[in-house]
Amino acid sequence: MGTADRAAFILGRLQKKRPLIHNITNYVTANDCANILLAVGASPVMADDPEETAEIAGLSDGLVLNMGTPSERKLDAMKAAGKSANRKGIPVIFDPVGAGTSRLRRKIAEQLLREVRVDMIRGNLSEISFLAGMGSREKGVDVSAEDLLTDPLQAAGEAAVRLGCTVVVTGTADVATDGHRILCIHNGTPLLSRVTGTGCMSSSLAGAFAAADPENLLDAAAAAAAAMGIAGELAQEQAGHLGYGSFHMALLDAVGRLDEKTIRERARIEER
Amino acid sequence: MGTADRAAFILGRLQKKRPLIHNITNYVTANDCANILLAVGASPVMADDPEETAEIAGLSDGLVLNMGTPSERKLDAMKAAGKSANRKGIPVIFDPVGAGTSRLRRKIAEQLLREVRVDMIRGNLSEISFLAGMGSREKGVDVSAEDLLTDPLQAAGEAAVRLGCTVVVTGTADVATDGHRILCIHNGTPLLSRVTGTGCMSSSLAGAFAAADPENLLDAAAAAAAAMGIAGELAQEQAGHLGYGSFHMALLDAVGRLDEKTIRERARIEER
Amino acid sequence: MGTADRAAFILGRLQKKRPLIHNITNYVTANDCANILLAVGASPVMADDPEETAEIAGLSDGLVLNMGTPSERKLDAMKAAGKSANRKGIPVIFDPVGAGTSRLRRKIAEQLLREVRVDMIRGNLSEISFLAGMGSREKGVDVSAEDLLTDPLQAAGEAAVRLGCTVVVTGTADVATDGHRILCIHNGTPLLSRVTGTGCMSSSLAGAFAAADPENLLDAAAAAAAAMGIAGELAQEQAGHLGYGSFHMALLDAVGRLDEKTIRERARIEER
Repeated sequence: MGTADRAAFILGRLQKKRPLIHNITNYVTANDCANILLAVGASPVMADDPEETAEIAGLSDGLVLNMGTPSERKLDAMKAAGKSANRKGIPVIFDPVGAGTSRLRRKIAEQLLREVRVDMIRGNLSEISFLAGMGSREKGVDVSAEDLLTDPLQAAGEAAVRLGCTVVVTGTADVATDGHRILCIHNGTPLLSRVTGTGCMSSSLAGAFAAADPENLLDAAAAAAAAMGIAGELAQEQAGHLGYGSFHMALLDAVGRLDEKTIRERARIEER
Repeated sequence: MGTADRAAFILGRLQKKRPLIHNITNYVTANDCANILLAVGASPVMADDPEETAEIAGLSDGLVLNMGTPSERKLDAMKAAGKSANRKGIPVIFDPVGAGTSRLRRKIAEQLLREVRVDMIRGNLSEISFLAGMGSREKGVDVSAEDLLTDPLQAAGEAAVRLGCTVVVTGTADVATDGHRILCIHNGTPLLSRVTGTGCMSSSLAGAFAAADPENLLDAAAAAAAAMGIAGELAQEQAGHLGYGSFHMALLDAVGRLDEKTIRERARIEER
Repeated sequence: MGTADRAAFILGRLQKKRPLIHNITNYVTANDCANILLAVGASPVMADDPEETAEIAGLSDGLVLNMGTPSERKLDAMKAAGKSANRKGIPVIFDPVGAGTSRLRRKIAEQLLREVRVDMIRGNLSEISFLAGMGSREKGVDVSAEDLLTDPLQAAGEAAVRLGCTVVVTGTADVATDGHRILCIHNGTPLLSRVTGTGCMSSSLAGAFAAADPENLLDAAAAAAAAMGIAGELAQEQAGHLGYGSFHMALLDAVGRLDEKTIRERARIEER
């Protein structure tokens, strides 16, 4: 099977399974994350109180931990959920929103990655570059601007090896790697960076694809990135000329129309 | 007056009165709840801190307690608001989001229903079925999957009798009952289940209709369910073929266009 | 330079500088605030935990403190951020959502205005009127309904003088004043009041314009109000007949299309 065929196959499994995806996420983009999960054929549940997250994660098929609008309370909620997911073998996706921009976010990223076995991390270049440096014993926690890696392949590769999980960098080109294989996903549009929450939505999608094929997380990660990129391309064709509000709406329309055939024809996933 | 005429009449009262509806709700769908209240002709206020909810509920014409993304702090806020509303005779609507899925949600539902006089409950079949069981002295709090009722009429009826309030089950068909009369509302579209927050929005609408006709809560409940269903039908005609994002937007468009004539012509409320 | 030319000039600076705007805001409209900032050409960051807001405000070009869905914790976050912004000379915009409607909101408004040097306040007539009265030594905190000012020019003027900052009242006509000069902005559409969060979005825009021209806050305030009003007019032309959902989306489309030429041609800013 080619890489696009594999991505299509995983979408098919997702839409058959309709996985329940537990999101502990920020209030800025929670609505979009829930809607994109519904649109792709998964089922979202949002819950972030430490009193209930272990229970709810345990009922789910995938867990997405998104570090936007963070707090100690949410860290506790994430740890409880993450440990519960680990015990049951439920895939855990981590979105290190703004990692490195504050002591609080550094602390949350460190503690989470120490106490929870994260299966996949999805972030932008600067977030992943920060995590790659954080993993380094020599450098300690603090990463100065000069330490930041500027090559997504290198950043993703180092983070994957040091943190021992699948890592996805999304940006002008998307890169996914588990430290062994490297997949580059050449789908998407710059418009995706002009709507808030498209990164968060990508992470929620990654959770749904991971839940659909937990044995093949690298392929699932690439499939999710391709799905988001293709939806962006379709939304741009439909509404890119109208503006960001229309593009945002068309993005959810497009995710809802994704099917195996579209993925097979449009996914541009290159094995490096 | 027929049932559709009554629903139209209540919408007319709502749009004349422009009731202020206090929502204590979740961050996933709060924006949609505020927008649907504005669109139908009511005025929303969102506030969830225990320090201010009693005061703000006391200024309102209706109070909607939505249990999504719950926490102890929000329970305190709901109790304070609910008691304040009770003292002033302001109708209280409860949306038991995910009731039964965690100990925290069971606790919140129990405490709320014990300490606050709830006038109307709106939920899906599994939530209402859980509450119907919870009300049962014999069974105690925990309801196993087998106890869950699968007939919306029975679930709504048992919950209404046991909890002593108007109960609405929304789903493929909507049922509203106060334990005496039963109204079935045959409006809506399956698309409503593919956008997050349509349940929450229905509950906020129910708050606005209850505030418009607090003496006739069963009719108000049916009118709100019909209004939501009709808006869904109109949005489907307008934008259903375009996708979930477009449908979501068209739903708010349609709620803003609801008038007495549309309700009178399209409401399909059957008295059982 | 005429007033419209100045407004256009400030938009040009904004779009060149791409300022980072830190928002401590409510969960009802946070998504729209982030999206409007992206659409106008700024960069949003949302963070509200007292542990990180001082740090993040210090990295930003503008700070917007929005009092919707308030709490003690958010007050602490706002104070930490505000003091950090003050130390670095970063402009601070305050949106006193619902000021006067509860003791909690009165306390937050008072403490913030006492402990943080606020550079600009944007609110509706009743909020600004409340703050104008609050500043009065004779009256103390409580303002009865009769004390509320009904003339936006008077309310804005008194608040500006008493609180020593630029004040914007948005409504049927917008007024901006620093206590010396008065600018009336005659852009906008009543439709803006039928979508939740347009006030919050105006405040976030004000933060971006203030960051673009921190030495001329009054002109920046008027430019932001004109930009929002013009976007409203364009959205109404495009989608006003379709409904509130479509108008909401078209508003973000229109903000994304704003350029110096549009502002120069359409801004109606009158110096009094």
